[in-house]
Amino acid sequence: MSDYFGKMMRGFPEWLPGAKRQERRILDTIAGIYESYGYTPIETAAVEKVKSLATTGDVSKEIFGIHRLAAEEGEQKKAEFGLHFDLTLPFARYTAENAGKLQFPFKRYQIQKVWRGERPQQGRYREFYQSDIDIVGDGALPAHFEAEVVEVVYSIFKELNVGDFTVRINNRKLLEGYYRGLGIEDMGQTLIAIDKIDKEGRERVIEMLLENGLSQEQAEGCVDLAAKKFTISEGLKFIGELEATNEILEQAKVELTEIFNNLSHLPEGSVIFDLSIARGLDYYTGSVYECTLKGLEHCGSVCSGGRYDNLAGKFTKRSLPGVGLSIGVTRLLYLLFENDRLPILAPTPTQAVVMLFDESQRPRANEVASELRKAGINTEVTHQVRKFPKQIQHAEKRGARFIIIPEEDGSCSMKDLQTGEQESLSIGKVVSILSE
Amino acid sequence: MSDYFGKMMRGFPEWLPGAKRQERRILDTIAGIYESYGYTPIETAAVEKVKSLATTGDVSKEIFGIHRLAAEEGEQKKAEFGLHFDLTLPFARYTAENAGKLQFPFKRYQIQKVWRGERPQQGRYREFYQSDIDIVGDGALPAHFEAEVVEVVYSIFKELNVGDFTVRINNRKLLEGYYRGLGIEDMGQTLIAIDKIDKEGRERVIEMLLENGLSQEQAEGCVDLAAKKFTISEGLKFIGELEATNEILEQAKVELTEIFNNLSHLPEGSVIFDLSIARGLDYYTGSVYECTLKGLEHCGSVCSGGRYDNLAGKFTKRSLPGVGLSIGVTRLLYLLFENDRLPILAPTPTQAVVMLFDESQRPRANEVASELRKAGINTEVTHQVRKFPKQIQHAEKRGARFIIIPEEDGSCSMKDLQTGEQESLSIGKVVSILSE
Repeated sequence: MSDYFGKMMRGFPEWLPGAKRQERRILDTIAGIYESYGYTPIETAAVEKVKSLATTGDVSKEIFGIHRLAAEEGEQKKAEFGLHFDLTLPFARYTAENAGKLQFPFKRYQIQKVWRGERPQQGRYREFYQSDIDIVGDGALPAHFEAEVVEVVYSIFKELNVGDFTVRINNRKLLEGYYRGLGIEDMGQTLIAIDKIDKEGRERVIEMLLENGLSQEQAEGCVDLAAKKFTISEGLKFIGELEATNEILEQAKVELTEIFNNLSHLPEGSVIFDLSIARGLDYYTGSVYECTLKGLEHCGSVCSGGRYDNLAGKFTKRSLPGVGLSIGVTRLLYLLFENDRLPILAPTPTQAVVMLFDESQRPRANEVASELRKAGINTEVTHQVRKFPKQIQHAEKRGARFIIIPEEDGSCSMKDLQTGEQESLSIGKVVSILSE
Repeated sequence: MSDYFGKMMRGFPEWLPGAKRQERRILDTIAGIYESYGYTPIETAAVEKVKSLATTGDVSKEIFGIHRLAAEEGEQKKAEFGLHFDLTLPFARYTAENAGKLQFPFKRYQIQKVWRGERPQQGRYREFYQSDIDIVGDGALPAHFEAEVVEVVYSIFKELNVGDFTVRINNRKLLEGYYRGLGIEDMGQTLIAIDKIDKEGRERVIEMLLENGLSQEQAEGCVDLAAKKFTISEGLKFIGELEATNEILEQAKVELTEIFNNLSHLPEGSVIFDLSIARGLDYYTGSVYECTLKGLEHCGSVCSGGRYDNLAGKFTKRSLPGVGLSIGVTRLLYLLFENDRLPILAPTPTQAVVMLFDESQRPRANEVASELRKAGINTEVTHQVRKFPKQIQHAEKRGARFIIIPEEDGSCSMKDLQTGEQESLSIGKVVSILSE
């Protein structure tokens, strides 16, 4: 049995305490990085109107509708609300509805559960955390924000300290302009084929492109471009030398130059300009990104995003271009735990345990615990009077490092379970040592 | 229109960014206090099996069932899962299922949304945050934990700094023992009547008790007891002098003495021993608590809880006695905002804005921003080159206090928007000033 998951209702994962503590740490770290760039938190309802969630005429299989159980036998059978399956649509609706009260460019982050009514399978869940940022402009959004989002991805995975990772960026306009230059007209099919190059390999993708009606020369041009990978400074050089044979390519050159210039302060090699990244979702209109964990590339990207020109067309006539990224945190944690790249934490946040050998000492122990808590030290008082070794064992199981024993003379004995050292100190001294 | 709520889907509230930032602060503060006492976080799925949620034979009106929209036209009409309506039932299920992997006494906190399918009304929502703690013992749970929970309530409201509040404690065993001493047998009806004394007044409650078949003397004895209010040291004295005419009263005396002794380190008057508190929920078997905001008593309690002897009888034969409390955070925030007891924060977490007057300076501005972020200062780079006053205005709107302008010589101008002071400094000096 897993030591991070509790017993699971089909597809609805729950962490055991030590894993949940690690998730909290990861989510706090991510939120801290978002805030350091000025992104503001929002939280939308768990539900959206079904008519907004369902993109086409028929409802998607992935949506969980909700209904009052009491209503089942009459009232209204058709669900008005469903659980959101991502945070992009709720963000679009929120931004459109509250636009008059928001500051543009609106930089928001959103860390919430999302739900998908799929059949549960290994590493895919019906409920999981997403952690998103988006920047949305009112009418326009400068390309330098596309650089910022990539920088945020890089900063997060560096800060999380979960082993090597690769942040890759590409640009849909560049691909489109280049393909046009080759005389290709069917962009959609070509991008879909190129997106499979990592999985299917060069030869298979050429076959697919030929099947789509491209000439041998066109197909080879596409896969040759997709084979290119650069650091940012190499990318700037490549872009500078690229001949702009059409307007869209010209535009791509201008934007990518701005984006790369705004990534020049990152260490060389932090971000890879990888011309094979296409991303399937057809609402991306400029940069696209993804991040993979080194050694776990076969598990797919753990973070992805891109630029889109119209976020909230479903909800408003206002033009709201944006750029964003999404991290699937539950799956990321599962991968990290499963591959021993992240430890499971102690089962409690307790740092110190105040011991006692007679119930009558408990009020005094409470006072000592209060002092420690005021100094920021997570402290429990032993729950039950038992022999010293039993109490030590209990404290160790809870993950506490320090044992404090109030003495009759008002001082305390402090034992460090990590070093085994023990000394007799004033309570003030204990507080000042542990505060460090 | 409200300046804290966004446009609301019926009964599903969403905060505007400044209010959401305050909610995050409040939730973090509460979690911090919980952890300082060694409570560990858990998070359960949003759903439970409907057969667990529905307490009686028929399904409750309050439950939202979920179903795959695609399944509506065939498969399975009856909902297997529903959204949880509190955090107690999910906690009981989680504890029963994972008992073999948990540390007892299990002290957990849980901060999650809950959902209720009620008709939405002012201050009542279909989706809201609850923030719970519980301590559960394996087979037994000492009474001193009942004191700890009260201390946690006191610590939270003190730390939140949202005006005066009252924490009140009572004990169901004491009431039951006392009523038995008066020869009363119908405990349930008597407790329900006494619980209404704040709202209905002494005379009306006496009438109700008489209607329930009590004698005038019995009824007066009950309301006289309910009129008593003590500080903890007064309470200890009262309990000490109380004649134990039966076994349950004797037990109440022992437990309350232990509880009050373990509250003796709090400032006198922090907690009121109020003999009118009964709490309707019949699963409480010992202490009961509530906390009200001074001046907003008519809004009811913002936090409540108590001791119960069998948490998870629905899920396991194991005896899991516990004690806990719950804070309805969404409603608490609404009350605090609405009554001007808590400010709405700035719409972004941005503390400093790095300005520029030519796009070519952006890469240098990014570097400066990176330095500031590494020092823990939330920093944005101006999104657009505009005249100085425009940029200042934009920074002010976002709630930033400091403006940083990188100079050609490598130094920076720093302007404090609060004091109006402006000076030219090295970037190192800027970082060290702002870090404070």
